[in-house]
Amino acid sequence: MAYIVDMRSDTVTKPTKAMKQAMINSAVGDDVYQEDPTVNALESKIATLLGKQAALFVPSGTMSNLIAIMVHCNKRGSEVIVGELSHIFRYEVGGATHLAGVMLSNIPNKADGTFDLNVLERRIRGSDIHEPITSLVTIENTHNVCGGKALPLQWVDELAELCKKHKIPIHLDGARLFNACEYLQQSPARVARDCDSVSVCFSKGLAAPVGSALVGSYHFIEHARRVRKMLGGGMRQAGVLAAAALVALHEAVPRLAMDHKRARILAKVIDGLSLPSFRVDLENLHTNLVLVHIPEASPLRAAQVVERLAQVSLAETQGDCKTAKDEGVIVKVIQFNSKTIRLTLHLDITDEDLWLAIMKITYVFKEMDAAAN
Amino acid sequence: MAYIVDMRSDTVTKPTKAMKQAMINSAVGDDVYQEDPTVNALESKIATLLGKQAALFVPSGTMSNLIAIMVHCNKRGSEVIVGELSHIFRYEVGGATHLAGVMLSNIPNKADGTFDLNVLERRIRGSDIHEPITSLVTIENTHNVCGGKALPLQWVDELAELCKKHKIPIHLDGARLFNACEYLQQSPARVARDCDSVSVCFSKGLAAPVGSALVGSYHFIEHARRVRKMLGGGMRQAGVLAAAALVALHEAVPRLAMDHKRARILAKVIDGLSLPSFRVDLENLHTNLVLVHIPEASPLRAAQVVERLAQVSLAETQGDCKTAKDEGVIVKVIQFNSKTIRLTLHLDITDEDLWLAIMKITYVFKEMDAAAN
Amino acid sequence: MAYIVDMRSDTVTKPTKAMKQAMINSAVGDDVYQEDPTVNALESKIATLLGKQAALFVPSGTMSNLIAIMVHCNKRGSEVIVGELSHIFRYEVGGATHLAGVMLSNIPNKADGTFDLNVLERRIRGSDIHEPITSLVTIENTHNVCGGKALPLQWVDELAELCKKHKIPIHLDGARLFNACEYLQQSPARVARDCDSVSVCFSKGLAAPVGSALVGSYHFIEHARRVRKMLGGGMRQAGVLAAAALVALHEAVPRLAMDHKRARILAKVIDGLSLPSFRVDLENLHTNLVLVHIPEASPLRAAQVVERLAQVSLAETQGDCKTAKDEGVIVKVIQFNSKTIRLTLHLDITDEDLWLAIMKITYVFKEMDAAAN
Amino acid sequence: MAYIVDMRSDTVTKPTKAMKQAMINSAVGDDVYQEDPTVNALESKIATLLGKQAALFVPSGTMSNLIAIMVHCNKRGSEVIVGELSHIFRYEVGGATHLAGVMLSNIPNKADGTFDLNVLERRIRGSDIHEPITSLVTIENTHNVCGGKALPLQWVDELAELCKKHKIPIHLDGARLFNACEYLQQSPARVARDCDSVSVCFSKGLAAPVGSALVGSYHFIEHARRVRKMLGGGMRQAGVLAAAALVALHEAVPRLAMDHKRARILAKVIDGLSLPSFRVDLENLHTNLVLVHIPEASPLRAAQVVERLAQVSLAETQGDCKTAKDEGVIVKVIQFNSKTIRLTLHLDITDEDLWLAIMKITYVFKEMDAAAN
Repeated sequence: MAYIVDMRSDTVTKPTKAMKQAMINSAVGDDVYQEDPTVNALESKIATLLGKQAALFVPSGTMSNLIAIMVHCNKRGSEVIVGELSHIFRYEVGGATHLAGVMLSNIPNKADGTFDLNVLERRIRGSDIHEPITSLVTIENTHNVCGGKALPLQWVDELAELCKKHKIPIHLDGARLFNACEYLQQSPARVARDCDSVSVCFSKGLAAPVGSALVGSYHFIEHARRVRKMLGGGMRQAGVLAAAALVALHEAVPRLAMDHKRARILAKVIDGLSLPSFRVDLENLHTNLVLVHIPEASPLRAAQVVERLAQVSLAETQGDCKTAKDEGVIVKVIQFNSKTIRLTLHLDITDEDLWLAIMKITYVFKEMDAAAN
Repeated sequence: MAYIVDMRSDTVTKPTKAMKQAMINSAVGDDVYQEDPTVNALESKIATLLGKQAALFVPSGTMSNLIAIMVHCNKRGSEVIVGELSHIFRYEVGGATHLAGVMLSNIPNKADGTFDLNVLERRIRGSDIHEPITSLVTIENTHNVCGGKALPLQWVDELAELCKKHKIPIHLDGARLFNACEYLQQSPARVARDCDSVSVCFSKGLAAPVGSALVGSYHFIEHARRVRKMLGGGMRQAGVLAAAALVALHEAVPRLAMDHKRARILAKVIDGLSLPSFRVDLENLHTNLVLVHIPEASPLRAAQVVERLAQVSLAETQGDCKTAKDEGVIVKVIQFNSKTIRLTLHLDITDEDLWLAIMKITYVFKEMDAAAN
Repeated sequence: MAYIVDMRSDTVTKPTKAMKQAMINSAVGDDVYQEDPTVNALESKIATLLGKQAALFVPSGTMSNLIAIMVHCNKRGSEVIVGELSHIFRYEVGGATHLAGVMLSNIPNKADGTFDLNVLERRIRGSDIHEPITSLVTIENTHNVCGGKALPLQWVDELAELCKKHKIPIHLDGARLFNACEYLQQSPARVARDCDSVSVCFSKGLAAPVGSALVGSYHFIEHARRVRKMLGGGMRQAGVLAAAALVALHEAVPRLAMDHKRARILAKVIDGLSLPSFRVDLENLHTNLVLVHIPEASPLRAAQVVERLAQVSLAETQGDCKTAKDEGVIVKVIQFNSKTIRLTLHLDITDEDLWLAIMKITYVFKEMDAAAN
Repeated sequence: MAYIVDMRSDTVTKPTKAMKQAMINSAVGDDVYQEDPTVNALESKIATLLGKQAALFVPSGTMSNLIAIMVHCNKRGSEVIVGELSHIFRYEVGGATHLAGVMLSNIPNKADGTFDLNVLERRIRGSDIHEPITSLVTIENTHNVCGGKALPLQWVDELAELCKKHKIPIHLDGARLFNACEYLQQSPARVARDCDSVSVCFSKGLAAPVGSALVGSYHFIEHARRVRKMLGGGMRQAGVLAAAALVALHEAVPRLAMDHKRARILAKVIDGLSLPSFRVDLENLHTNLVLVHIPEASPLRAAQVVERLAQVSLAETQGDCKTAKDEGVIVKVIQFNSKTIRLTLHLDITDEDLWLAIMKITYVFKEMDAAAN
C-alpha cells in the first residue's frame, strides 16, 4: 500500500469536524420556498462580505457562473467577452453557449490572468445589425490556469472604468476570491467593488463539501433565482450544506495564508533543484496553486510526470523515498496542458503530507530530468 | 403564536436523526472525480432497485428530468411528447425548451394521469422535413397534478408496446415512484421495467434533505454525467447528501404506507363533511396527495381557502379549534389551480399534527361553505 | 404522357407574365443597406394595407413567423400559446423551439380554426418561478389544416380583448390572409386590426414566385430586421422578388374570389357523388382549400387516394377519363393525416384543368369507394 | 446632383441584361418539393464545379454558413474553431451561437487570412467532460477582413492534414471563392478539395441579385435541406433567382480578372500618392478588395474618410474634380475598423467610374493628408 498525498485540487478537501457538527445542528427548511434559515443566513453573510445586496446559494461554481451570464445576457443575441484561459471558456463545457445561446468572445489572457484592455475595447461590438450585442465582461480572481494569480487591483480598477464607459457590466468568477484577498491583503468587498456580480466557491480552498454563491443586486438575484430553478439548481433542505459553508467562512478563510506559505515552500524546493526540465516561477507565485513548467525543448510531457508521481518504483521503497511505515508515496497532481502540471495546497494537506510530497517530487523530478538529458 | 401543520408538500420534510448521523459518519470524496464512495454506493443501490445498469446523483428532480431529456434528445430538432398536466410541462420553467431547444409537444392528461394512446400515436411525427423528430415520451408516476395517482400498470405496458413499435424511448418522472410502488404493491424494478430512464427524488416523501437520481443504461448515464457538468450539477463531497438518501431508502420507503393511510383518513373526514363547496375523490385516492376540488359553480376560489387556512380567527381560539396549549392552528397548503387545493401527507406530520389539521380544516371548510351558500 | 393538374398547394403557382415583366423592369438595390426601392415600396404598401406602421420582406412564411416569435419572445424563458393544428406547431420544424428556445404551449383547435378562450386563459402562466413567461398568442387566418377556414371576426375580437386584459400580444399567421378577407368581405386592416404582428405570403394564392412579409410597428420591424440578418434572411437585390409581389397584390388578390368559387364547384361535385368513403363539409367551405375526409370506419387510407390520383389506369384511357388528346389525367393532391386529403384551387388551375380534375376525381373516388365497400 | 461610384461592396451589383432574360425565360417549379428545374440545374452545376456530390440553393451566404455549422455540429455541446477576423465570427450576428447553441472558439487570424496551425491544434479539445466537443474548423477564402486575400494553397493542404488527423471536418466560407481561384489560377474543385462543405455566393462579385449555395456530400445536403426549412430558407419558385446565378457562373466568373486588375490600378494610384496618412499593401493585394490603412499615429479616423468621400465640396466642383457634366463625384466606401477603409471593385464599376473614383479619392486623400499633418 502506498501513502497518497492528493494535490490535484483544493476541491478534494473534506468537511471538518466543526462543519459536520454544524451540518446536523443547524436549522433547515425548504429553500425553494426560501424558508431555510441557514441558507438565508449564509446568503446574507456572503452578500455582506462582498459588499453587495443579495446572494444565492447554488450547487457549484459552474452553475453560479452560468446563472450570472444568463441573467446579464437575458436578451437574444448577447455575447460575453472572456479570457481564453478562463475557467468559463475552458472548463464549463460551454454551457453559456450550449444552454443559453450566449456567444463567448474569447481574447488572450496575459500570464498574470489579466488581458490587454485595448484588445478588449476593440472586441466590444457596435450597434450594427450584423453583430451580436456585447453584454458582459468576465474576469477570474485568482486566475486558475494562470497559476492562482491574484489580479492586480489597479488593473481591475482600469477595467471597471472602461466597462463603465461602455455601459457593460462585469462578472467576477471568484471561485478562489478569498485566496486573492489574502494575497492582496484587501477585503473581499474591495476586490469585488466594481463587479456587478460575483461567484464564490465554498468547496475549494474553504473546504466545505458542496456549494457556491452568486452575489449581486437584489434585482439580479431575484432573476437568478428563477434561472437556478430552470437549471434544476433549487435544492430543498440546502441548509445542511450552507451550515458547512458558514463554518468555512469562519474557520477556513483565516487558514488560507497557511496554504500560500506552504505553496511557496514547495515551489522553493523545486526551484532549488535547478533541474532544466522543471521550472517554477517563484516570483509570480501568489497563492495555493503551484505550476510546474516543462520547457518546450524538453522531450518530457506533463502526462508522463503525472503518471510517474502516481507510481511507486521498487527503488523508492528500497531507498529513502517512503514513509516511516515503509510505504511508498504517491502524489496526485493534474496537468493543464502538455507542458504544465499543477500542484495544489489545501486544508487537507498536513505538515507530514507536505514533506512526503516534497520528498517524492524531488525524487521523481531528479529521476525524470536525468533520463531526459 | 399559532401551531403550524405544513401540508404544502412532502419536500418540506427535514432530515431524520439517522440521516444526520449518516451524513457525518459516511466516507466522502470528490464526486466530480467519481471518488465519493457514498455517492457511488447510492448510485449503485438505486440502479439495482430500479433494475437498471447505472445511476447519477443530481441536486434536484428538475435537473434529473432535464438531463434525461437532453440525453434522449441529443440531436438538433428533437421533440418530447408530454402530458399537459405533467410536472415537466408545468413546473420546470420550460428548461427543456429554453436551455436545450427541445420541443415539448403536450397532449391532454386523463384524470388518472395517463393519456389516450391514440392521441399519443397521432402526435408522433413522420419523417417529413417540415416536422421535428419525435424522440421521447415522458410519463409521471405517481402523477402529481392528477392527485398523486399511480399509473395503471397495464396502461404503462401498453404505452411501452406502442413506443417500442415506433422506436421511441420512455422517460419516467418518478419523483414519487416509491409511492406508486407502495400503492400498486409492485417492485420499483417492475414499475420502471419498460422505461429507458427514470428520475427518482430522495427529498420528497423519502425525507432526505437534498437530491435525486437519474437512472438508466451505462451509456446513458455516461452521457448524463457530461450534461450534469454543463448544467453545473456536479457537486464535490456530495456523499454528505447521498448518505442521507441511503438512509431514506432504508428508513422512509417502508413508512410511505403510513402516509397513504393518513391521507385516506384525512380525505374521509372531508368527504364525510358532505359540504357542497369541497369535494374529494375518495375512490381515486391512491397515495399521499389529497386534492380538494371546489365546484366550478361555487364563488369560492382556491386562493381564498389557502389564505384562510393560514389564518387564525379570534373565534377559533375562543372556541375549540386550538391546541392543548391554547394556540391557534395554521394549516399550510398549496393550490394547483383556481379551484383545487392540495394537501400532502409526509414523514414530518405527527399523529397530533394530523388531528390538529383535521380539526382546523373541518372548522374552516364548514365556515367557508356556510358563507358561500 | 399524362396530363397533370397540380392541386397540392397554391404554392406551386408560377409567376404571371405581368410579374415577369415587373421583375426585370423594376429598380433594384442592395436591400441589406435598405436601398432596394422596390422592396421598400412593397414593404410600405403591405404595411398600409394591413393598417400597421412597417413591414419587412422575407424569403418565406416560415421565416416570417419565426422572426415574429423571436421578437415578441426576446427574453429568456418565454412561451407562445399556439393551436395544435396550426402551421407553426405542425409544419415549421419546431424552429421557434429549436432555434429560439421558445416554448410552444399547444392547445386544441376547434374545427373552425379557433380555440376555446377558457382553455387559452387557463393556459396563461402566472408569475411563479416554476413557470415560463407567457409572451404571445398566435392565430392562423385562414386556417390551413382546418380547411382554409376564415376565423370568425367576432372570435378574433373576443380573443383580442382577453389578450389585452393579460397584456399578451397576438401574432397572426396570415399566410392566406387575403383569402380570409375575401370570404369575410372585410379589409385586411380590419381583419388584422387587433394583431400586433402579421405574416402574409405572396407565394401562395397570390402566385408570386418567392416571398412573405412580416408586418408590425416601427420598433417591432426594426428588431425583426436584426433577427432576419441572424437567420440569413437578408437578401441583396430582393427587388426582383418584391416586384412580382407588388404585381400579385394588384393582380391576384381580386382573383381569389374565383378560386373560392371553383373550390365550391369541386366540393359540390364530390358531395353530389354521395359516396360513403369520401365526405366534404360543404357548409363550412370558406376559401380555396377543399378537405376530403375518409370516415374512420373505412379501410381506405389517405395515402392510397393520393397515390391512386397520381396514376393512370389502362381502363381510364380506354374509357372517357382522358383529355381531348387522349392523355390520361393525373391529379396531384396531398394528405393532412391518414384520413384526410387536401385539394387546392389556385391561379394556375385553368377552367379546363378544373373539369379534367373533376372527371378524374369522380372516376377514382367511385372506383375506390366501390372497392372499399 | 452628384455622380455616385458605389465601392462599398460587390453585393451592390445589379442583375445584368442576360440575367434578367434568364430570370423570365427559365422553367420554374416549387423548390420546396424539389421540383424547380432551374434550381436543380444550378445545384447540380455548382456541386460539379466544386467537385462535391450535392448542393443546396439558399437566400444568403450567412444562411449557408449557418446551415453548414448546424449540420456539422448536430450534437449538443459542439464547438467550431473560427478565425477572429472571419465573417462568421464578426458579421453573422453570432447566429451559430444564438440560434444553434454552437460555441465559436475564436483564434487569431494572421494578416494573410490564415491562422497558426499550432494555435489551432492547441485549441482542439480533449474528451474531458469539462469541455465542449470540437466538431468543425472554418476557413474563409478569399478572406474579406484580411483584404480579399486568397489563402495559400499549401497552408490549406497542411490544415487539411491536421484536421484529418484529429477527425475534424472543415467548412470553407467561399463567399468570394471564385476570386480566390482566379488569383491562385486553380480550379474551384482544387481549392475546395479538402473541405467537407463549402459556401459560395452568387450575389457578390458574380453580380446575381440573390442567393448562395451550400455544397457537400449527398448526406450532408439532405440534412442541410431540413435545417434550411427550419430557418425559413425554403423558397418556392426560386428558379427565378437560380436562373440569374447560372448566368453569373457563365458570364461573371471570367470577368473577375478584370476586377482584380482594376483593384491593382486603384491601389497603385493610392500608393503612388505617397501620402503618410494613407497606406495600401500593394504586394499583398490579391483580388478585388482594396484596404486603405491609416497609421495608428495619425489623428485621422476611417469614419471621417468615409464621410468625406461621400461629400462634394464647393472647391471640387469649381475645380476639376467633377464629371464631364459638371457633377461632383461621390465615392461610397465602408470602414472595417477605426483605421481601415475598404474599396471594392465589381461588375457595375465602369471604366469611367473607375477614373472618376480615382480622381475623387486622390483629391480627398491629398486634402485630408494635408490637413492632418
